[in-house]
This record gives sequence, C-alpha cells and structure tokens, in this order.
Amino acid sequence: ADVKKIAVIAGDGIGPEVVAEAEKVLKRTEEVFGYRFETEHALFGGIAIDEKGTPLPEETLTVCKNADAVLLGAVGGPKWDNNSKELRPETGLLGIRKALGLFSNLRPAVVFDCLKDASTLKPEVLEGTDLMVVRELTGGIYFGEKFRRESAQGEEAVDTCAYNVAEVERIVRQAFEIAQGRRKKLASVDKANVLETSRLWREVVNRVAPDYPDVELEHVLVDNCAMQLLRRPASFDVIVTENMFGDILSDEAAMLTGSIGMLASASLGEGSFGLYEPVHGSAPDIAGQGLANPIATILSLALMFRTTFGYAEGADAIEEAVANVLNAGHRTSDIAVDKSKSISTTEMGDLIVAAI
Amino acid sequence: ADVKKIAVIAGDGIGPEVVAEAEKVLKRTEEVFGYRFETEHALFGGIAIDEKGTPLPEETLTVCKNADAVLLGAVGGPKWDNNSKELRPETGLLGIRKALGLFSNLRPAVVFDCLKDASTLKPEVLEGTDLMVVRELTGGIYFGEKFRRESAQGEEAVDTCAYNVAEVERIVRQAFEIAQGRRKKLASVDKANVLETSRLWREVVNRVAPDYPDVELEHVLVDNCAMQLLRRPASFDVIVTENMFGDILSDEAAMLTGSIGMLASASLGEGSFGLYEPVHGSAPDIAGQGLANPIATILSLALMFRTTFGYAEGADAIEEAVANVLNAGHRTSDIAVDKSKSISTTEMGDLIVAAI
Ligand SMILES: CC(C)[C@H](C(=O)O)[C@@H](O)C(=O)O
Ligand SMILES: CC(C)[C@H](C(=O)O)[C@@H](O)C(=O)O
Repeated sequence: ADVKKIAVIAGDGIGPEVVAEAEKVLKRTEEVFGYRFETEHALFGGIAIDEKGTPLPEETLTVCKNADAVLLGAVGGPKWDNNSKELRPETGLLGIRKALGLFSNLRPAVVFDCLKDASTLKPEVLEGTDLMVVRELTGGIYFGEKFRRESAQGEEAVDTCAYNVAEVERIVRQAFEIAQGRRKKLASVDKANVLETSRLWREVVNRVAPDYPDVELEHVLVDNCAMQLLRRPASFDVIVTENMFGDILSDEAAMLTGSIGMLASASLGEGSFGLYEPVHGSAPDIAGQGLANPIATILSLALMFRTTFGYAEGADAIEEAVANVLNAGHRTSDIAVDKSKSISTTEMGDLIVAAI
Repeated sequence: ADVKKIAVIAGDGIGPEVVAEAEKVLKRTEEVFGYRFETEHALFGGIAIDEKGTPLPEETLTVCKNADAVLLGAVGGPKWDNNSKELRPETGLLGIRKALGLFSNLRPAVVFDCLKDASTLKPEVLEGTDLMVVRELTGGIYFGEKFRRESAQGEEAVDTCAYNVAEVERIVRQAFEIAQGRRKKLASVDKANVLETSRLWREVVNRVAPDYPDVELEHVLVDNCAMQLLRRPASFDVIVTENMFGDILSDEAAMLTGSIGMLASASLGEGSFGLYEPVHGSAPDIAGQGLANPIATILSLALMFRTTFGYAEGADAIEEAVANVLNAGHRTSDIAVDKSKSISTTEMGDLIVAAI
C-alpha cells in the first residue's frame, strides 16, 4: 500500500495519553491490514505556547499541510486561560481550522448501548438516537471583524457575523450528501426570523434542496432546535448549521447521548484531507493519571480511515474491537459503574489493540 | 387602592384564549383584594398585520406606554411566516422590546411536581431544578446593523453584534440582585474564548462582582452551559447572558423542566414597568379549540403582581390557586396523562378563579 502521512498533535492535558493509545492502534492496523503510515508529531496549543511562544507554530502548520490527515488529542487548560488572545490555545484552534481550510465539522452523536444509563435523559427518549451535526467551521461570528470602540455609553465591543453564498452552499451541499448516505433527513438550523445571515442561509438551503429530492428537509429555528433535541432526539438525522449555533448544539447533542467520552469528530476541507479529534476536551483535572478514556480518540482514527483514506476494512475492525472490549465489560473510570473495577488508559488501549 | 393600568395584548393563535382566562383572574383579584385595574386591549403581531398593515401599530405602543404593565398572549403563526421582514410578527416583538426599553428578560425554569414525568430528563437529575435565566433583550446581534453586500464569492449577508459597558452592566447588576434574593449563585455565560463582546461582558462581570460579595459567581462558556444544563440542571440558580445565547439557553432550560406549558416570563426595563407573557408560543395548531393551557399566562399575571405592582398577597393567592387546582388533579390536555379526562381552557380558568 502507499504510505499515508499522519500529522499527530497530542496537545495538552489528557491529549498525549489518549493519542498514544490511538498510535498503538495505528501500528496494529499496519500489521493486520498491511497499511503503511508515516507519523510526524507537532506541537500545538498550550504546550506550543510554552515551548514556542505561539499556539500554532509555523512548523506545525507545515507538518499538517504535508500530511494526508491530522490526529489531534485536545488543547487548552487553566494555565493559559488568562493569557492574551494571541497566546491562547483556542486561538491556535481557530487558526488551524482557517489555515487548513477545514470548513466542515462533523460531530456524530450516538448512544452506546453500554452507556445508555450514563445519559441524564430517559432511556425511552434516547432510544434510537443517532444524529450528526454538520457545523460550518471557518465562517460566521468566529472569524468576522472584531474590535473595540468608544461609544457614548462607555467602551463598546463589536463582533461581525458574515456569510456569503459560496460558504453556505458548500457546507449545505455536504450535509445533504451526508444525509443521503444516512436516513435521508436534514434539519437546517438558523434564526431566520432575526438574522440576515440566517435568511441568506435559508435561501441557499431552499435553492439547492431540489438537487436532493430524496432528502426530507426541515428548517428549525435555533431556539426551537435546542428544545427539540431534548424532546425528540431520535427524530433527528443530520443537522446542518452555522459556526456559533453548531458549537452550542453539537455540545448539547453530544451530552444528551451520555457518551461524550466516546464521541469522535472530523473537520474536513476540500478533498479528502481532514483533522480528526475526540469531542471531549483536554480534561486537565485528570491529566497524567492514566484515567483518561482513549476510546473517542481511537474512534476518531476509525473515522479518519473511513473518511480520508477509504480504509473501510480497518475502520470496521477498529470499531468492532472497541465494541467487543466494551461488551466484555472493560471500562475506564469515566464510564465505569463500579469505579473500583475500572482499567487504565493504557490497559484500555492494549485491550483494543489485542482485539483487532 | 389606586388604579393600575394594564395593556392587554391577546395576539395570535391561542393568545386570545389564554389571555381571556387571565383577565377573569384579574377581575377576581379585584373582588377579593380590592385592587383596581383598568385594562386596555391592543392589536399586535399577526392580527395587527392583518388589520392594520403592521405588526406593531403606533396606537398599540401608545397604549403600552400609558400602562403600568403589559400582558401579552403570544404572537406569530405560519400565515405570516413568509412575509417580508416588516410584515412579520417577530419584527413587532423586537420593536416593542426596543420601544419600551425592555432590556431584561426573566425566564424562570422550575419543575412542577405534577409534571415531573413530562420531562425527558430522569427525575433524579431534575430533582430540585429551579433556575432563572436573565437574558439581555435589547442589544447584541438582534439589534446590530444588518445588511447584504456583494462579495467575490457571491452575495454576502452581515449581522453585527455589539455591546457597550452600560448595556452589560445594567443587566449584570440586575442578575446579581436577583441572585441575592434567591440561592445566591450566578452563572455568567459567554464565549469569551472567541468573541470580543464576550470578553467585554466578562470584564464587566468581574468588575462589578465585588459589589455582591455574597453571590457565588462562575463564568461558563455557552457551549459548556448547553451541556451542563443537561448534566446538572439543579446546580444552577441564576444564569445571566446576552441576547442570542439567552434565546437558546432559556428555551433549552424551559424544555428540560418538562413544564413549558406552565412557565411565565417577564421583560423589564428601568423602573417597575414590565411586559409579562407565557414562555410557550402561539401554538396555531390547537388555536380556537379550547385546548390551550392558560396556566402560564395566569402565572405571568402573578409575576406582574409581584414584580410591577408589589401585590405580593394577590400573587401568592394566584399561585396557590393554581397549585390547588393542579393538586386536585385537574389538567388541560397538554399536561394530562389520561387525555380523555382533560378539561378545557375555560374550565381550567374557572377552576383557578374559584380557588382564589
Ligand atoms: C475552544 C473553542 C474555540 C472551540 C469552538 O468554539 O469552536 C470548541 O468549543 C470546539 O467546539 O471545538
Ligand atoms: C420570536 C423571536 C424573535 C423571539 C426571540 O428570538 O427573541 C422568541 O424566540 C423569544 O425568545 O421571545
């Protein structure tokens, strides 16, 4: 097989621990399936601030640009929370998304059978929940002009939210296509009764919809969506929305599954390139103690295999290995009912490797 | 007693039905407590579009401005959804908030014992949930400049989100004061890791916080708040946030209580003036059938009594009457377990009137 290049960014907090387990899995798939990977590690986030004086060093960007895909652990932590804007891990995150053109963030929210009880929702409400939030990732209020100015009522801060037709169209078309490969339902979320960007968004959705006649489309206002996710989570298939709304709704959706420690995500651009990361954060409170659950990162690798490399066989094998290890009753402490019987990060990684 | 003037805006959908029941309650409190009210009805929303060609006629605004408080049913419906911006009920809603200076929206989310089962959350998670969302209502992206322009990538839409120090300070101080009268906890919600308006918001919160040393303050990022509302709803007391985040989070919070048909809200400005309305919408699908639950509107009246008029006795009496009627097992169909035994809008209103 040809060599696939993966940029590996461990990041902060539990990032290095969970990424290390995913790398073991990567090696194992080379043995079992004959894949060939070349990994290159790069500094990013808080650790890059500490060692290089910037959250996103030029060489990290170069490593990513030379790779076929990026595996990211997690970034951030209280140590850097009060830094000025340029010296914050989040600024690196926004920077890497923009620099790599990752305009689409896919966040599947599924319920793992073994974790049903971990949700705060009633099991009967959650039954069958399997949705995907497609979030626009390089536009909107995140990237619009921001500034301060003097006003008659004291200092004033301004953020600008802008979307053009092309930006909306590419993410919306992608969401329609994803829906075609799933249960063929798309909810487009906006605030068209208030925002001009939302009215443009809705116009574009309605204009392209006829190209996907097999997909059932509904427009949902963002406030209503926040409610409906709670009332009827299983009725959603694909949700597409702009950057800020997607940030809020994808976290709400992830949390309601009760499986947040297990959820993978992909950030995609044009072509097959993608950045893959667990939905959970850097969890600085448990970092370095072998308590972290590596499953979300390992499943992010499976998502990379399927989405960027077209390695369906390897992806299936990883996902089955995870399922088998869970079905055999193994749990890291975050998902253990009986914490005294929980296993460590590396034990979980080793079991999954062995199951492939 | 001196005469209190109430502007009554029935609005659209179930609005007229639920407002009619609240007016009966109003009369009853005149008899029982010797209050004196003068009500004046005004057109607003869809019906005003139909009859006057604008969602917020000048005379409606005059009626409101001459009143001590406004009671609003609900506005909107599919009939007006595709109208141009100027001819939409929501435009009237934004207009009335701005014109009356209603900068603060209070949305209590409480769990009614008799409705615990109606929530999609597990009862043990919901236990003790009693929170109040304080939403800034006349600033932010709702009211900033909006426009379209040509860009190299097709038409572009722009919304502007702006906040000045004075706007943030008045709502934040109000939220601190509300927290002092409750469980003394305040969660300030922002997206300070991305937005300039959020950074200003957080600066103001931190600057005024020392004036309220008895209130325990936490800063919560909006995406995290959407998660924590699901994970630990009972741990929140008062949540204060800007307009757009408040729109989303207050609806999420209301829905998780399972009691959305029972929740009241107040929109306040400087002084004691306020606009009171149920949290639920105009529900056009059940309008005119006697199916609507008038309790949220009746409880909005109680909130008006307590907040604008200082009529604590009357407010208590209304709330107790509602509790007694519910405890006696009476239910409108939206909250009935056995729908065949449910009572109508007017029957519910009559029972509450009789219980005062
Ligand atoms: C850390 C933050 C800037 C980021 C975002 O808001 O996009 C995070 O919440 C996410 O969802 O990846
Ligand atoms: C109808 C709409 C403009 C309004 C808002 O977004 O403020 C509504 O959702 C609300 O919360 O009162």
